[in-house]
Amino acid sequence: MSGRTTGAVVIGLDLGGTKIAAALFAPDGEVLVRRTRATPAREGAAAVLDALAAAAAEVDPEGLASLIGVAAAGVVDPRSGRVTSATDSIRGWAGTALGAGLADRTGLPVACDNDVRATAGPELAALTGHRGSLLYAAVGTGVGGALAVDGRMLHGAAGIAGHLGHLPSAEAAGLPCTCGATGHLEVIASGPGIAAHYARLTGSPPDRLETVAARAAGGDRAAVRAITTGAAAAGRVLGGLANALGPDRVVVGGGVPRIGALYHDALAAAFAAELMPPLRGLLPEPPLHGGDAAVRGAAALPATLPLHRPGAHR
Amino acid sequence: MSGRTTGAVVIGLDLGGTKIAAALFAPDGEVLVRRTRATPAREGAAAVLDALAAAAAEVDPEGLASLIGVAAAGVVDPRSGRVTSATDSIRGWAGTALGAGLADRTGLPVACDNDVRATAGPELAALTGHRGSLLYAAVGTGVGGALAVDGRMLHGAAGIAGHLGHLPSAEAAGLPCTCGATGHLEVIASGPGIAAHYARLTGSPPDRLETVAARAAGGDRAAVRAITTGAAAAGRVLGGLANALGPDRVVVGGGVPRIGALYHDALAAAFAAELMPPLRGLLPEPPLHGGDAAVRGAAALPATLPLHRPGAHR
Repeated sequence: MSGRTTGAVVIGLDLGGTKIAAALFAPDGEVLVRRTRATPAREGAAAVLDALAAAAAEVDPEGLASLIGVAAAGVVDPRSGRVTSATDSIRGWAGTALGAGLADRTGLPVACDNDVRATAGPELAALTGHRGSLLYAAVGTGVGGALAVDGRMLHGAAGIAGHLGHLPSAEAAGLPCTCGATGHLEVIASGPGIAAHYARLTGSPPDRLETVAARAAGGDRAAVRAITTGAAAAGRVLGGLANALGPDRVVVGGGVPRIGALYHDALAAAFAAELMPPLRGLLPEPPLHGGDAAVRGAAALPATLPLHRPGAHR
Repeated sequence: MSGRTTGAVVIGLDLGGTKIAAALFAPDGEVLVRRTRATPAREGAAAVLDALAAAAAEVDPEGLASLIGVAAAGVVDPRSGRVTSATDSIRGWAGTALGAGLADRTGLPVACDNDVRATAGPELAALTGHRGSLLYAAVGTGVGGALAVDGRMLHGAAGIAGHLGHLPSAEAAGLPCTCGATGHLEVIASGPGIAAHYARLTGSPPDRLETVAARAAGGDRAAVRAITTGAAAAGRVLGGLANALGPDRVVVGGGVPRIGALYHDALAAAFAAELMPPLRGLLPEPPLHGGDAAVRGAAALPATLPLHRPGAHR
C-alpha cells in the first residue's frame, strides 16, 4: 500500500470512463487478485455502482476484505461521499452518492476520492518527512492534478482542489475551455489540446496526439511547435503554482508526457524559469508508480479519509 | 483573538520594513496596550530582534504575557522559526533565527510566521465550518497572500506557500520580476506595477499609484487602463487559483484595492470569468479586519504553531 495503512485486507477500485480496475490488497500491500471490467458508462449511475460492487465481489469472492477504497473520475467530495460534478463520460454521474451507494451494495465501509488524488497519494507517502508537499499534475485527455501541502492531501470546497487545468495560460489566450471559460491551460496542454493546436497551425483537421508526436519525431516543425507549446504552457503554470504552494516534489504523470524528451525538456525549462530563488533546483519528475497506481492509491484511501458505512444513508 | 485561542495573555508583534506594531491581548481578545516603534531596518538582524523584544516589554511592563506571536515580512518557516529568505527591506534579515532569537531576548515561548499568513489567520477563523478553505491575496507594494485549505493554513517547503505574486500572468508577459523570472503577476498588479504600466502607456516617468488613481478618477484613459489591467490580471490569476484550490472564501486585501470601485469591478469580473461551474457565485471580498489585523493575527499564532522556547537554540 502506501504510507499509512489500515492493517486490513482492502479492495481498491479505480473507476474510469471506459473501465473499472479492481484489486484485492493484503495488509502488506501485496496484490492478491486483480481484475478489470468495462464501465457501463451509458447505463446511468445505478448501473455503474452495481458494476463497482460486482468488481469488488469478483476480486474478493471469499469476503476477506473489511474495507473498500474507490477512486473515481470527476469532482469527488470524500466527506459527503458524493460526486460533486462530472463530465458526460459517465452518464448521470454528477450527484451520485458514491460512498453510501457502494457501501449499501457491498456491506463494507467505503472511502472515496477523485482518481487523480488517489493516484497521487502513494507519491505523497513516498516523500521523506511527514510534512512534505507535493504538486502532482496529470496531463492526458484533460489536465488534472492533486495538491498536498504540509503532509496533507488538499480537497477544498466541494472536493475541487487539484483542478490544475483551469488556471489561466498565456498560450491558451482566447481559446474556449470545456469549463465554459476561455484561456485555460487544459485547452493548450492536454492531449486533445496539443492536437487541436497542431490542426490550427497546419490548417488540417484535428488529429490525434499520437499522430502529432510521430510527425514531430519525423521533423514536422508544426508538430514540434504544438508539443513544445503545450509542454511550456504546462511548465509555466506548474512553476507559478510551485511558487504559490512550496512543494518538495513535483510530479507530472498522465499519457501526454510519454511523448518523451521533446515534451519533457520544454516542460522542465519553462518550469525552472518560473521558480523563485528558494525553490531553484526543483525539477518535475515522472510518477514513481506505474499502471496500478490508481487502484493502489484507492486501496490506501480508507487509511486517511472518512468511511461511508452501509445503511448510513442520510 | 480569533478561532482557537491559547487562554493566555499574549503579546502580538507585527514587524514591517518601516515599523513594528505591538499589542498586549487579554485571553478574550481585548487589546490591553498598543504601541508602535520604528524598525531599525538598516542596523542588521540583531538590532531588529532587540527592537522586537523592546516592543514586547513596552506593551507588557508587568510581565502578564506568557506567549509571544510575531508576524514578519519575508518568507518565514514557523517550524524552524527562521526567515528563509527576504528582500532588502530589512538588512541581513534572511536566515535570522526569529523564533529562538526573540525567545532568548524575552524569556517567553515564541511562535512566528509570515505577516500575510498571520493577517489571514483571523479571516480563516471567521469561516463557518472548521474545514473551510481561504484564498487571501494582499495586493500592495508586492503581491503576496496566504492559502488555507480544509481548515489549515498552508506553509509549504521553506514556508513559501502563499506567494501569489509569482504566478504567470499574460498581462505581464516579458516584463522582468523582482524574483528574477519574467511575466509574473506582481509585475503588473502590485502598486508599483500599476504605476510602471501607466508610465509605459504614457511615456512619462514612473509615478506613484496614488497619482495614477487620482488621474483615473479625473478621466485619464491611460490611468484607467493601467488600473483595470492590474486588477484584471489579479482577478484572472485568483480565479484560476480558486479552480485549483476550491476556496470557500476569497479575500483581497492590501493597499491597492483601496483605489475603489474601478479596481474592484475589474478584478471581480475577471475573477468570475475564470471559475469552473462548482465555484460560480464565489466573489472576492474585502478583509473582515482593519488596521490591527496583522498584530491580532500574530497574537493568534501561538494557538496553532510550534513554539520556540528560550535557551532551546539548536
